[in-house]
Amino acid sequence: MGILAIDFGGTRIRAGWFTPDLALVRRSETLSRVNEAPAAVIERLLNTARQVLPSPDDPHFQAGISAIGLSAPGPLDAQAGIIHHAETLPGWQQVPLARIISEAFGDVPVAMNNDANLAALAEYHFGAARGADPAIYLTISTGIGGGAVINGQLFTGWRRLAIEPGHMRFTLPDGRVCRLEELASGTGIGRLAQETLVASSQPSSLRSAEVIDGKTVGEAAQQGDALALQVVQQAGYWLGLGLANLAHLFNPQAIVLGGSVVQLGDLILRPARHAMEQNLLDPRFDDPALIRIAQLGDDVCLVGAAFYAQQHLTR
Amino acid sequence: MGILAIDFGGTRIRAGWFTPDLALVRRSETLSRVNEAPAAVIERLLNTARQVLPSPDDPHFQAGISAIGLSAPGPLDAQAGIIHHAETLPGWQQVPLARIISEAFGDVPVAMNNDANLAALAEYHFGAARGADPAIYLTISTGIGGGAVINGQLFTGWRRLAIEPGHMRFTLPDGRVCRLEELASGTGIGRLAQETLVASSQPSSLRSAEVIDGKTVGEAAQQGDALALQVVQQAGYWLGLGLANLAHLFNPQAIVLGGSVVQLGDLILRPARHAMEQNLLDPRFDDPALIRIAQLGDDVCLVGAAFYAQQHLTR
Repeated sequence: MGILAIDFGGTRIRAGWFTPDLALVRRSETLSRVNEAPAAVIERLLNTARQVLPSPDDPHFQAGISAIGLSAPGPLDAQAGIIHHAETLPGWQQVPLARIISEAFGDVPVAMNNDANLAALAEYHFGAARGADPAIYLTISTGIGGGAVINGQLFTGWRRLAIEPGHMRFTLPDGRVCRLEELASGTGIGRLAQETLVASSQPSSLRSAEVIDGKTVGEAAQQGDALALQVVQQAGYWLGLGLANLAHLFNPQAIVLGGSVVQLGDLILRPARHAMEQNLLDPRFDDPALIRIAQLGDDVCLVGAAFYAQQHLTR
Repeated sequence: MGILAIDFGGTRIRAGWFTPDLALVRRSETLSRVNEAPAAVIERLLNTARQVLPSPDDPHFQAGISAIGLSAPGPLDAQAGIIHHAETLPGWQQVPLARIISEAFGDVPVAMNNDANLAALAEYHFGAARGADPAIYLTISTGIGGGAVINGQLFTGWRRLAIEPGHMRFTLPDGRVCRLEELASGTGIGRLAQETLVASSQPSSLRSAEVIDGKTVGEAAQQGDALALQVVQQAGYWLGLGLANLAHLFNPQAIVLGGSVVQLGDLILRPARHAMEQNLLDPRFDDPALIRIAQLGDDVCLVGAAFYAQQHLTR
């Protein structure tokens, strides 16, 4: 027996085959191509998953699939296995993805949860947050998602919608109310750079860039472009206010930061930490090991999904 | 046997004598007078507590005090029974109040926690949040404090410092970073009214007021003063953004609002609810019964302290 894990993201579909003790023995990956119809995307997802199943002459073949773990973008209904809708999945409304996958693999039970929750579980059990409780996980890339582990268990609140740290509200000098993810995600960094380029005449390598997004602004910042650095620093400032809020509300032992934006390292983390420290009620909310970098990389949701399936579905 | 509960606040000291099944049979109350030296305040606290103890010929006298519950302002170390410091207690630094009280009553064990945490427990077990999980409690008066119940237990995080919702950060149009409690507490309402009176020439009954604070602004608003109403509405707006943050982070079944500012009723609650609704990611975070008014009144911390002592110290 083994565990099939599927990580269905807005950009990529990943699948992994795990032994009962959660060693990843085979993985496959493809692009999601979510601009195609949901049925075509689902077919591609099922094929990607089939590629990791062992064949009968494989040493890892035992008696089939004991459970399937599924990571998907939220908001979703983890209990019913339904994707309500997701910003990264245009056209997906109330899709019963867990049931579809279960039926495709001979009615094997599917445990589904949102990507950031499963990543939080994975980092808590196997990564940067081992032994830290409460542990908060933030993924900062196109948007900002999050998950929380409290008393060793995934914390998701009343209707299993928590935590959504990217939706903390801040107000800009012009009075606009923004979500944290509009200010500190890759998308936010790209937008802020575009605004700054229009509003100032400061020279910048970005003025000749074809695309101005989180990736290109990050690259310019890493090459020392002053305007890009200032934009990344501003995003770090907002991130730091968000971290202060999380510290005050959860008093976590660890906040693990994952996602592409965190690859910018100290360029964003130093201003974030500074803003957080400046805004704490009491130094006891802080700790040298409070802010940690995620350890599990691209497979974090696969590992989380496999663990979650093992915990919920196998005995 | 009975339980002695003490609610030590910045303004008042309350004491209550509870039967083992948590009926309050005798209470006393005095002013804290925290401008006096800590030793004098502690003496007054002990005397207030002694007044509620039954005499041997009292029908409630059994065999003495089984446990003492102590509610105090934070930040404090609930485990060690020490008040680190508190904005409302000038001169109190590292006072081992739990031990002092325990020794004064014959080494009876003392269970201590902060006022908002105990109020959250009380409202969860006996008040507006019965059966709601997670339940968040906010007290909005001079400042803003809070407590959370998750899976039926008080949630306080790693170093028992959570939750501090009054310390969520917001930014003003002029770029200043403010805590929620600077924007939506009684103190915040008073300050905002003072600023508005200076910045505008709008007529207002407050222009002839001797004192402009949360109380007088609230009274003026209740009498229909347009400027005061606008100030209360603005405070409600910030409160609503804070409620949206709490909804996104805890997905609570109930957020219970207590404290003097909540006495303003719909004047502040309607704009707060409106701002919250406008800022939710998904209507599933909301519910008609999400925002509730506290039910236990002035004795909420006494009831919470008695319950907490019973839960922790008696068998």
